[in-house]
Amino acid sequence: MDFPSELRRQAAVVERGLDQYLPPADTRPARLHEAMRYSLQAGGKRLRPVLVLATADLFAAQLGAALPAAVAIECLHTYSLIHDDLPCMDNDDLRRGQPTAHRQFDEATALLAGDALLTHAFALLAESYAAQPVLAHALIRELADAAGSRRLIGGQMADLLAEKKDATPAELEFIHLNKTAAMIEAALVLGGLVGGADAAAIATLRRAGHELGLAFQIMDDVLDATADRATLGKTPGKDAKAGKTTFVKLHGLATSRQLAQAHSAAARAAFHELPGDTAFLIALVDSLVIRSS
Amino acid sequence: MDFPSELRRQAAVVERGLDQYLPPADTRPARLHEAMRYSLQAGGKRLRPVLVLATADLFAAQLGAALPAAVAIECLHTYSLIHDDLPCMDNDDLRRGQPTAHRQFDEATALLAGDALLTHAFALLAESYAAQPVLAHALIRELADAAGSRRLIGGQMADLLAEKKDATPAELEFIHLNKTAAMIEAALVLGGLVGGADAAAIATLRRAGHELGLAFQIMDDVLDATADRATLGKTPGKDAKAGKTTFVKLHGLATSRQLAQAHSAAARAAFHELPGDTAFLIALVDSLVIRSS
Repeated sequence: MDFPSELRRQAAVVERGLDQYLPPADTRPARLHEAMRYSLQAGGKRLRPVLVLATADLFAAQLGAALPAAVAIECLHTYSLIHDDLPCMDNDDLRRGQPTAHRQFDEATALLAGDALLTHAFALLAESYAAQPVLAHALIRELADAAGSRRLIGGQMADLLAEKKDATPAELEFIHLNKTAAMIEAALVLGGLVGGADAAAIATLRRAGHELGLAFQIMDDVLDATADRATLGKTPGKDAKAGKTTFVKLHGLATSRQLAQAHSAAARAAFHELPGDTAFLIALVDSLVIRSS
Repeated sequence: MDFPSELRRQAAVVERGLDQYLPPADTRPARLHEAMRYSLQAGGKRLRPVLVLATADLFAAQLGAALPAAVAIECLHTYSLIHDDLPCMDNDDLRRGQPTAHRQFDEATALLAGDALLTHAFALLAESYAAQPVLAHALIRELADAAGSRRLIGGQMADLLAEKKDATPAELEFIHLNKTAAMIEAALVLGGLVGGADAAAIATLRRAGHELGLAFQIMDDVLDATADRATLGKTPGKDAKAGKTTFVKLHGLATSRQLAQAHSAAARAAFHELPGDTAFLIALVDSLVIRSS
């Protein structure tokens, strides 16, 4: 398998899916639908939707069957970025090298576009899997839990609170587990559900997602501390500037890199327990801990 | 039937349901869960959840079966109020006679509490109706459509855009149909689905919701133009102040009141087509067009 070309192929499938499964840009009111598409189409790694597709592949799911779930999770991820960038949150001007939604449009439009992408994630799952309501229900339950107040949003809240004081290692772990790992876990589980994975395989996918999510977030902290704006495509050094506790601040750069390696090794080990050809997923894990952006 | 005492009884059931079906206030992170409960518990008419319960009653659904759907729609409605009150939207200090969420907490917490209530609406439906995945799927699909970018959020966006220029009667109708009527329609349809209503009854409920939603919104415009702050429990006259086009501005007070009466008569007529004892629902319609807040 040629990993870079396979990754490009899967990401291209995701791009087409985003276009296919979002309301057209001229849907009334057009400004709202333009803003939804603007943020979704700003690029990025498409990590979560590619994980959905690659995991569904392991269980020999048809591509068409997995694509709406992949798009739904990217809608949900993009909503969280739009709201996270707002002035009352991180107040960021740049995302993926482009003006953030509230800079390109305005704050109210960005707020509503985020709300709309969150809602669309559930509407899309309900609509696309309507012929299989048991599957639709399982997908929605998984995504709603991962995105809820105990997980994704709870992680965002804890992250905000951590700006005001030094976070303990346990608090930082809560943030990483929920702000980042929750959606990576959900991506793998959605892929497994679409593929018809059994309960044991779903549990393994959840464990792989947990480890991969932690590895990914620690590398994000490392990159925030070391990369430049052009490479990163967003404002670097903002965690340090905000006085945020990061893995790098708690453990130093070298130990953070080692921790990321340990978590990625655990993710690889979990993938090895799964059926099918896991070469692509394992190469994806490797690429995330040696990335530069 | 004694309408006021029956309304109080149903609203009390909703209050208990809100407490029962929300994560405890000390759930980590506590500030987020406190803010979710603060906004939900600020009172209000509980119109939408009472409509869910009353409609399910028509079809002889057990109260326990309808309550999670009632709570879910109130979570969704409350999220839309929290976000609508934010500084970048209506910038309101007062809601139901109490400080708005961003005044009581802060803007970021209010934003996240809104996101969390929206997500919780879907999580709660998925969880509470897990033993009936076909019903869970139908409820989620209905709510996600009503809350989406073409309906509730589309109505909010159109409402914002209408502040910048004079809205035409057609634009104002789009706003009312989506910003207000969509969730009232959804409340009746959710109640019908929980009660096992057939497709014809669901279509009648949708029509009743459409008419009731328009009647309700026109009366809101009338009250905004005529009531005082103490009676209304929120800042009155803000539509006029914002230069917003309202039914009152387009048609005058007397004609607006007549239009509200016409739509409420159409809602009553639709309810009369339904099985069961519709006396409570019809009294509720009547109460909404003679209300003072």
